[in-house]
Amino acid sequence: MTGPALRAIVLGSGAGGGVPQWNCRCRVCRLAWAGDPRVRHRTQSSLAVSVDGERWLLLNASPDLRRQITDTPALRPRGDDRHSPIAAVLPTNTDVDHVTGLLTLRERQPLTLFGTKRTLDTLAANRIFDVVAHDVVERRVVPLGEAFEPLEGLTVELFMVPGKVPLWLEEAEVVTDAETEGTVGVAIEGGGRRLLYVPGCARMTPALEARIARAHAVLFDGTLFDDEEMIREGLGDKTGRRMGHMPMTGEGSTTEAFAHHVGVRRIFVHINNSNPALIEGSPEAARVAAAGWEIGHDGMEVVP
Amino acid sequence: MTGPALRAIVLGSGAGGGVPQWNCRCRVCRLAWAGDPRVRHRTQSSLAVSVDGERWLLLNASPDLRRQITDTPALRPRGDDRHSPIAAVLPTNTDVDHVTGLLTLRERQPLTLFGTKRTLDTLAANRIFDVVAHDVVERRVVPLGEAFEPLEGLTVELFMVPGKVPLWLEEAEVVTDAETEGTVGVAIEGGGRRLLYVPGCARMTPALEARIARAHAVLFDGTLFDDEEMIREGLGDKTGRRMGHMPMTGEGSTTEAFAHHVGVRRIFVHINNSNPALIEGSPEAARVAAAGWEIGHDGMEVVP
Repeated sequence: MTGPALRAIVLGSGAGGGVPQWNCRCRVCRLAWAGDPRVRHRTQSSLAVSVDGERWLLLNASPDLRRQITDTPALRPRGDDRHSPIAAVLPTNTDVDHVTGLLTLRERQPLTLFGTKRTLDTLAANRIFDVVAHDVVERRVVPLGEAFEPLEGLTVELFMVPGKVPLWLEEAEVVTDAETEGTVGVAIEGGGRRLLYVPGCARMTPALEARIARAHAVLFDGTLFDDEEMIREGLGDKTGRRMGHMPMTGEGSTTEAFAHHVGVRRIFVHINNSNPALIEGSPEAARVAAAGWEIGHDGMEVVP
Repeated sequence: MTGPALRAIVLGSGAGGGVPQWNCRCRVCRLAWAGDPRVRHRTQSSLAVSVDGERWLLLNASPDLRRQITDTPALRPRGDDRHSPIAAVLPTNTDVDHVTGLLTLRERQPLTLFGTKRTLDTLAANRIFDVVAHDVVERRVVPLGEAFEPLEGLTVELFMVPGKVPLWLEEAEVVTDAETEGTVGVAIEGGGRRLLYVPGCARMTPALEARIARAHAVLFDGTLFDDEEMIREGLGDKTGRRMGHMPMTGEGSTTEAFAHHVGVRRIFVHINNSNPALIEGSPEAARVAAAGWEIGHDGMEVVP
C-alpha cells in the first residue's frame, strides 16, 4: 500500500469566460473558433486536489463545472446509484467564475462547502444558492491565514494576496493593489508535498515570496502576457494591474519575480483569451517556456 | 431574397442535470459514462429561435450555455471584435436550469433580457445577476398571456400551464397541479409558422389542446417515460406528476393526449437522465417512435 500523495488536476486553465469567450473575436478566440490546433479550448479556472485519489476538494466551482466533471475521469461517479468523488468545495471568493458551478452540485449529494464568512454570507444572501440543499451540504466557515483540513490528510490555508474585489460587488471606490479578502491564494499540503494555487495576484509581496520558496509547485496567475494587452487588443480599458493581475512579462511581471525560484515547478493558470502565449508555437509561448514556466491546460495533472 | 422563416435549434435536450448527471449511476447515466454510442450526452434544456438566422432569441439560459454556444455554429460570434448572434433571452421562470446561463452572458454584450415581473424581480433580488450589466442588458417586463415581439418578425407569448414552482422557492405548501406563473409554455410565431415550446407540463388542458391544434410543431415535456420512474429507479420519492411532468406513457400521458394531433410534428425535449427512451434501440424508444414522436437531441434544428 502506498502512502498519501498530493495530486492536483487543472479542471479549467482559462480565466473568466474561458477560451473561446462566448462573444469574442480577438486573435486567440478567432483561432479557437476556427478549430486551429494551435489554440486549445479552455474552460474557466478551477483546480481539484486529493491525497488519496478517492476524495477530492474543488478549489473554486466554475460555470463550466458540469463539463469539467464529464471530462475528468477522476471526478466521475463510481459504483452504484448516486456518488461523487467530490467531497468538498472551497470557493476562494465570490467571483461569478468561482461560485456559479455550485449550482451544478445539486441532487442531494452530501459534501462540505468551505468558505470565509464573507463568502458564505454572500452566497446566503443570494437565495438561488439554496438549491445546494443545506441539510446535505454543510457550510463551514474557515478563517483566512489559518491552516485547516478539509479532507483527511490534506491541509489547506487561504491567504490574502494583492488584488481587487469581485466586479459585481465593486462599489464606486475601488481598492486594487491592497491585500483584501477579495483575492486569496491557497497553500495546499499533503503527503509531505506543498502546492501553491494563486490564480489572481496584482503584485509580489515578501510574504508571498516566502511561500513560493517553500513550495514544490506553484499554479499562478497567467491572465495576461503584458500589462497593456487588454487595451491594445481593444478588449477593455484597464491595465492588467488595474484588473488585479501581474502580467507574465515586463516590469513587475511573474517571470521577473519568479526568476530566482528555479527549484519550484511553475505553471500558469487562469489564462485570459487575450493572452498570445495561448497560441502554441508563438514567440510569446516560447518566451514563457524559456523563462522556465509551463502553460497549464485543462486536464493537466500536477504531482508536486 | 427569401422571406422570414422560423427556425429553432434545440440547444439542450436534457432535463435538469443533463445526461449524464454529475453524480448519477442510473441505467442511462452508466451507459453515458461508459461512452456507449446508444446514449447521447445531453445538455440542459434550452431552445434558440430566429426568423432571419442572424439574430436569435434564447428561451431559457441553461447552466450549459457556454458549451451550447461553442457547439452551435449559428450562435458563434462573427466578424471582428465582440459580437454575438444572441440578441435576446427569455427565461420562462427562475428555475436554476433556466437562469444560470445568464451568468455566462457577461462581457458587456448588448442584449435584451425579457421576463415576467416575477422572474425579473427574483433575478434582481439575487445580486449575482448584476454581472449581466444593467447599462448594456436591458431588462424588459413581459406579461403572461399576451403576444410580444422580442425580435423583429418573431412573435412570442408566454402562457401558464399546470406545473409547480421552482424547487428553491418551494415553501411548505406546494401546489402542483395548478396553472401558475411557475410553469409556462411559449407560443412562437414567425414567417407564418407556429411552434409551441412546453418543456414542463403536469397535465393536458382544453386551452393547451387548442394551442397544439394550431401549431405546426410542438417541443414538449419528455422528462419521464412513466409516472413511477423516479421511485422505481431509486432516484427520488416523487411521481412524475408530483414533479410537475406528464409522463410519455400510461394514463394521462403525452402520447395518449396527443394521439389525435397527427398533423403536428411532435418532439420530446427536457428529457430526464432516468428516461429509458434515451437509449437508442430500446423498446421504450421504439414505443415513443411508434406513437409518432421524435426524441429531441442537442443541436437538432427544427423548421416548423
